[in-house]
Amino acid sequence: MNNFRLNMPTEIFFGKDQIEILGKRLVKDNVKSVLLVYGKGSIKRSGLYDRIISQLAENSIKVTELPGIDPNPRITSVAKGAELCRENDVDFIVAAGAGSVIDCSKAIAAARYHNGDPWDFFIRKASVKKALPICAILTLAATGSEMNGGCVLTNEKTQEKLPMGSIRLKPRFSILDPAYTFSVPKEQTAAGIADIASHVFEQYFSYPDAALQDHMSEAVLKTLIENAPIVLKEPENYEARANIMWAGTVALNDLLELGKEGDWATHMIEHELSAKYDITHGVGLAILTPNWMRHVLDADNCYKFAAYGRNVWNTTETDDMSAALQAIEKTADFLKSLGLPQKLSEIGIDDSKFEEMAESALKNTRVGTFKPLSKEDIVKIYRKSL
Amino acid sequence: MNNFRLNMPTEIFFGKDQIEILGKRLVKDNVKSVLLVYGKGSIKRSGLYDRIISQLAENSIKVTELPGIDPNPRITSVAKGAELCRENDVDFIVAAGAGSVIDCSKAIAAARYHNGDPWDFFIRKASVKKALPICAILTLAATGSEMNGGCVLTNEKTQEKLPMGSIRLKPRFSILDPAYTFSVPKEQTAAGIADIASHVFEQYFSYPDAALQDHMSEAVLKTLIENAPIVLKEPENYEARANIMWAGTVALNDLLELGKEGDWATHMIEHELSAKYDITHGVGLAILTPNWMRHVLDADNCYKFAAYGRNVWNTTETDDMSAALQAIEKTADFLKSLGLPQKLSEIGIDDSKFEEMAESALKNTRVGTFKPLSKEDIVKIYRKSL
Repeated sequence: MNNFRLNMPTEIFFGKDQIEILGKRLVKDNVKSVLLVYGKGSIKRSGLYDRIISQLAENSIKVTELPGIDPNPRITSVAKGAELCRENDVDFIVAAGAGSVIDCSKAIAAARYHNGDPWDFFIRKASVKKALPICAILTLAATGSEMNGGCVLTNEKTQEKLPMGSIRLKPRFSILDPAYTFSVPKEQTAAGIADIASHVFEQYFSYPDAALQDHMSEAVLKTLIENAPIVLKEPENYEARANIMWAGTVALNDLLELGKEGDWATHMIEHELSAKYDITHGVGLAILTPNWMRHVLDADNCYKFAAYGRNVWNTTETDDMSAALQAIEKTADFLKSLGLPQKLSEIGIDDSKFEEMAESALKNTRVGTFKPLSKEDIVKIYRKSL
Repeated sequence: MNNFRLNMPTEIFFGKDQIEILGKRLVKDNVKSVLLVYGKGSIKRSGLYDRIISQLAENSIKVTELPGIDPNPRITSVAKGAELCRENDVDFIVAAGAGSVIDCSKAIAAARYHNGDPWDFFIRKASVKKALPICAILTLAATGSEMNGGCVLTNEKTQEKLPMGSIRLKPRFSILDPAYTFSVPKEQTAAGIADIASHVFEQYFSYPDAALQDHMSEAVLKTLIENAPIVLKEPENYEARANIMWAGTVALNDLLELGKEGDWATHMIEHELSAKYDITHGVGLAILTPNWMRHVLDADNCYKFAAYGRNVWNTTETDDMSAALQAIEKTADFLKSLGLPQKLSEIGIDDSKFEEMAESALKNTRVGTFKPLSKEDIVKIYRKSL
């Protein structure tokens, strides 16, 4: 296990009707003026919007709104949000929605204090020195953004989708009410589960091994596997939605990666797809994941896939390579059972940009630590995914 | 899953030589005068004491010392420590040692601002309104005190051992260097592992079930079972010591109990033993745990013991009661394999105080939530443990 530092400042309010604490919690932090960031209006249909507004009104907190955030949030929304914060003396951002809304809010929180293009943070021209505090009110279990300091934004002009992060961007607090995910459509629920599973794989399949962290990864995967069929069949099953929601948070709140060097190759090559084709991140991950596994598996690392098979899928094969191969096919079957597309061709992506995307993924950084990928490797994984 | 709130303010510095951050980290918090609390001198033999003192001296931080804390820390040490804090304008407590030292330091941190007997906190006559910040430098994997707000103190006069807790007592930061546990003797290492396992059982065997929390409990148990034989055989195996150390922290930093109502019966009836006979807490737990399991097992709850057996011990029995019984015997065998005593009679305890201790355990509170215990139940568990 490598040395590590852990700092989890985000307070979590989990469960039914926890939204009721919003007003008081903001007053405790002496908040006077918030920017309320949300998406395409699902929070209006679900009634969440009204509850937020009434909490803010009751506590005499001024509200400025930034609606319409895209599923792959855009850097242009960030510039707009930062400007609204400056104009309205905003001292706190309330992000109500999925990971896209929370990610966009984090970028706004940093951009508020940056004189220059917000994209600077993503191309490492600037680092986050100061940021507005934010809270997340989560409506989709997927990205884990509600308890970490990362965000991923898309630059439409350059067709890039890049991550950045800072401890200063970890939410001050987050409200997680599983009931807000009851109305999430089946495909989005499934894509969210694929995203969560991918977060676990990116950390599990990485060096060095770390016993507890890796067993905790297995715990998250088992929770997903047991609860996914339930939420897809019974979207209003509170317990199953709660299990998936908390799994999504734990999958990416630092705990699984402590003392390890996460791989993140699948995410990086998926970001290229989302940037070029504006597809749903979780769908891209579901297609790429089994093919990443098939491509990187070798005699040296098969022990790890075998452990995954035995501890998560109860594989009884005693030979490591056989257990590994079985585990990979189990993974593909699980993702298929979620009803997600299994091939890029199913979602209208052909091989015309594979080379370009592979080059772009490798432009500023290496791709993968568990098995570093070359341009040829990436193209092969895309091709296997056709 | 019940609603829950999670707040983990303790920053963790884990790994080799992390002690090097101590001085700078205290300066960051503008600390001028610390109370250094430690035990019977093992930190002097290991060199840790010198490293702490030099870090403090380099940063011109005044040091007042409170050495000699007992393994079952006493409330008289708390009064003394609080007085030292007042006399020396102490603004931060550095607790260097095992859980006993950290627990005592937490009680001092609270007592510093309390006009009255520090025991008031433990008999619920006072609550913690304000406390000095503390850091823990851990030298024994066991209690989890390094990342939670609880402490357990002994009152020699009344022969009581009671817990109390507050979010205000969660350490500001903790330094966890597995190398500091290399010199822990075999029996103490084993008792620490039994303590960690017991923390997991107290939360795992509780209602309601919570999928991820329960699978994470299984992850901690698997980590203990895999690494215990290694640390007992190779006390300087860094990786195994690291795995056990981090397992000890995760076992009691709130994560496993979220949305559940922990049982804690075994701890409560063990505290009676420690208070009356001054035995090692982990030894008492190791003796009582299998007997608690055997006593509470019934047709309604055997599914939970069966799940434990299947997920932790790979039990293949398909009948729940058979799987449960096998899991309990596996647990007893594991604790035996640590070389710990298995009977109260082995450590000089007879049945003369069983009734008295059972009454004392039940004096101010119920004992157990998974299966609430009556006086007769407690006496039976003690008797089975003879």
